[in-house]
Amino acid sequence: MISLSDLPLRADLVGQEPYGAPQLEVPVVLNVNENPYPPSPAIRHEMAAAIVSAAGSLNRYPDREALGLRGDLAAYLGHGLAAENIWAANGSNEVMAHLLTAFGGPGRTVLTFTPTYSMYPEYARNTCTGYVTVPRNDDYTLDAKLVLDAITKHQPTVVLITTPNNPTGTTVDLDTIEAILEGSDVLLVVDEAYQEFSSGPSALELLERHPRLIVSRTMSKAFALAGGRVGYFAAAPAIVDACRIVRLPYHLSAQTQVIARVALAHSDEMLAQVRSLAAEARSFEDWARGRGYEVIDSQANFSLIGRFPDRHRVWQDLLDRGILIRETGPAGFLRVSAGTPEEMALLRSALDEIDPTLEGRAS
Amino acid sequence: MISLSDLPLRADLVGQEPYGAPQLEVPVVLNVNENPYPPSPAIRHEMAAAIVSAAGSLNRYPDREALGLRGDLAAYLGHGLAAENIWAANGSNEVMAHLLTAFGGPGRTVLTFTPTYSMYPEYARNTCTGYVTVPRNDDYTLDAKLVLDAITKHQPTVVLITTPNNPTGTTVDLDTIEAILEGSDVLLVVDEAYQEFSSGPSALELLERHPRLIVSRTMSKAFALAGGRVGYFAAAPAIVDACRIVRLPYHLSAQTQVIARVALAHSDEMLAQVRSLAAEARSFEDWARGRGYEVIDSQANFSLIGRFPDRHRVWQDLLDRGILIRETGPAGFLRVSAGTPEEMALLRSALDEIDPTLEGRAS
Repeated sequence: MISLSDLPLRADLVGQEPYGAPQLEVPVVLNVNENPYPPSPAIRHEMAAAIVSAAGSLNRYPDREALGLRGDLAAYLGHGLAAENIWAANGSNEVMAHLLTAFGGPGRTVLTFTPTYSMYPEYARNTCTGYVTVPRNDDYTLDAKLVLDAITKHQPTVVLITTPNNPTGTTVDLDTIEAILEGSDVLLVVDEAYQEFSSGPSALELLERHPRLIVSRTMSKAFALAGGRVGYFAAAPAIVDACRIVRLPYHLSAQTQVIARVALAHSDEMLAQVRSLAAEARSFEDWARGRGYEVIDSQANFSLIGRFPDRHRVWQDLLDRGILIRETGPAGFLRVSAGTPEEMALLRSALDEIDPTLEGRAS
Repeated sequence: MISLSDLPLRADLVGQEPYGAPQLEVPVVLNVNENPYPPSPAIRHEMAAAIVSAAGSLNRYPDREALGLRGDLAAYLGHGLAAENIWAANGSNEVMAHLLTAFGGPGRTVLTFTPTYSMYPEYARNTCTGYVTVPRNDDYTLDAKLVLDAITKHQPTVVLITTPNNPTGTTVDLDTIEAILEGSDVLLVVDEAYQEFSSGPSALELLERHPRLIVSRTMSKAFALAGGRVGYFAAAPAIVDACRIVRLPYHLSAQTQVIARVALAHSDEMLAQVRSLAAEARSFEDWARGRGYEVIDSQANFSLIGRFPDRHRVWQDLLDRGILIRETGPAGFLRVSAGTPEEMALLRSALDEIDPTLEGRAS
């Protein structure tokens, strides 16, 4: 039997493992920032009806430009956007891969600010783009000087700023983003995967004035459509055209296009839980502060709490109680996705039960 | 408004256009080798029922390993294959992109034999892999000496052999494939996208003895699922593991996994038209020979006929009559996908009506 070490794997891939959080079947899943509320039965049946219709031409290739879906996404975002401002793909993963294929590549660099989303280095690796990180401020915030100094130093083609940031939940205000755009000529991707959970304004407001700004979004979180795999961005049409060159044709299946469009047609209902999930996360953070945990200020549907001298033990103790959270973020912290009120009550009880030792707290 | 030329597009992408055949709404579509027979109403309703069920957890990420689907694909292929031998992705496009991301990259070369499938250079371009082509024999066949000489000369990491070849329909026999595998240590991808239409044996027979062989397939053609976007390959588990490293997680949506599995559960029905479509193509070729056309021997669900001094005019004359075929292949040839008997009758009448001048025939 041939093994991986016998094969001519690309040198920088040797020793790497497939990316991904554990997919375990446990009662309370709070590890990948999913929305705990599935589509309603009415929406599920509307999706099925759309599939019956679309399946009548599944023997044909799907609409290569996905203009209907892109138009619906534009209408959802507002801000005067149209289909030609929108690019969509199989999850933000593929959207980012398209951007770095078009604007990255050998000899080019993408810059981002850590701690941040753990998939970014994979996008860079796959597209042979250099990946450079600069630490955020000690409180995980970003300011324009920090970013512009890093741009001057590392000369990236693309800069990635995540707001609310994953895994810290930290936001970056629009004045800072605008100052970065005015102080440099990079392509600035503002990753707003969790924006719907935030009380702050969206960088979409800046698009009209800043043609090198790309605002990326996903249907996985607020739209409760992680299984549907639809990510997208809004930008100048020329940036969309660059992605059209590098996308492999028919990248969005017929079924993905129709299911996403049904979800978008019910955006009010799909988004109904967004405010309550944000409130659930903030409420959990208040509780955690009361228990002596260190909590990072978050505007997302997740919370980062610590500091645990042995976070892996706490993660395992929770898992033993049927609760899966995420071992990620700065040393000593654990990330918790907002679940239903019942799930969060179980989490609070379990944390009290295991009484984890905390750094800086008498145990 | 910013234009593409103002943006830092990767240098080798400048001036390129998005790939794709025209998507036109005309009565007879014979241009992209689709299967003209859609899924039956019973299958469409079974797909919808599967969607109602799967949509109940669309808020959750899909099975990242897609083991159910990969197991079904293994069972369909037979030859003692199991899920760990199978890799699946959003169309053969993505399967090939995974392979070239894992085994290609800067400084490496993929070799193939022209004329062949027009997407291959795009896979190489996107993965920064060198793309080298060597002409086939004059009759579009391949022999082991031609291939092995080219391997010696160009030192590729990956070799792509398409059988039946697109756009010529030409097959490569198993002795030739085995001689290539025995005479070199390249990773050999045998692209069998059209294998189900062929009367010859599959390279799957060689997998057990040749761990560097990869046999790729698609559900787009024989399974009449072009809209569903499912491509796959069979190979040694280590080759699958390499793709697992470079795939972006959750690349196959929940809806794609369930729809493909419904189609596979009805493979007898989905494949029922395969023999009749191959017969339709061969019958059209007999007719074309009778009319004085030059016809390439094909084992696929399409035919390549010529030679037209002005093939674009013939393509346009047919389009004016509501028939869309493909302007591709060697100079002077046009490619025709096998349609229904009614569609092929319309095509024959239209060709007689426009009476195209042929090279080598008195007109």
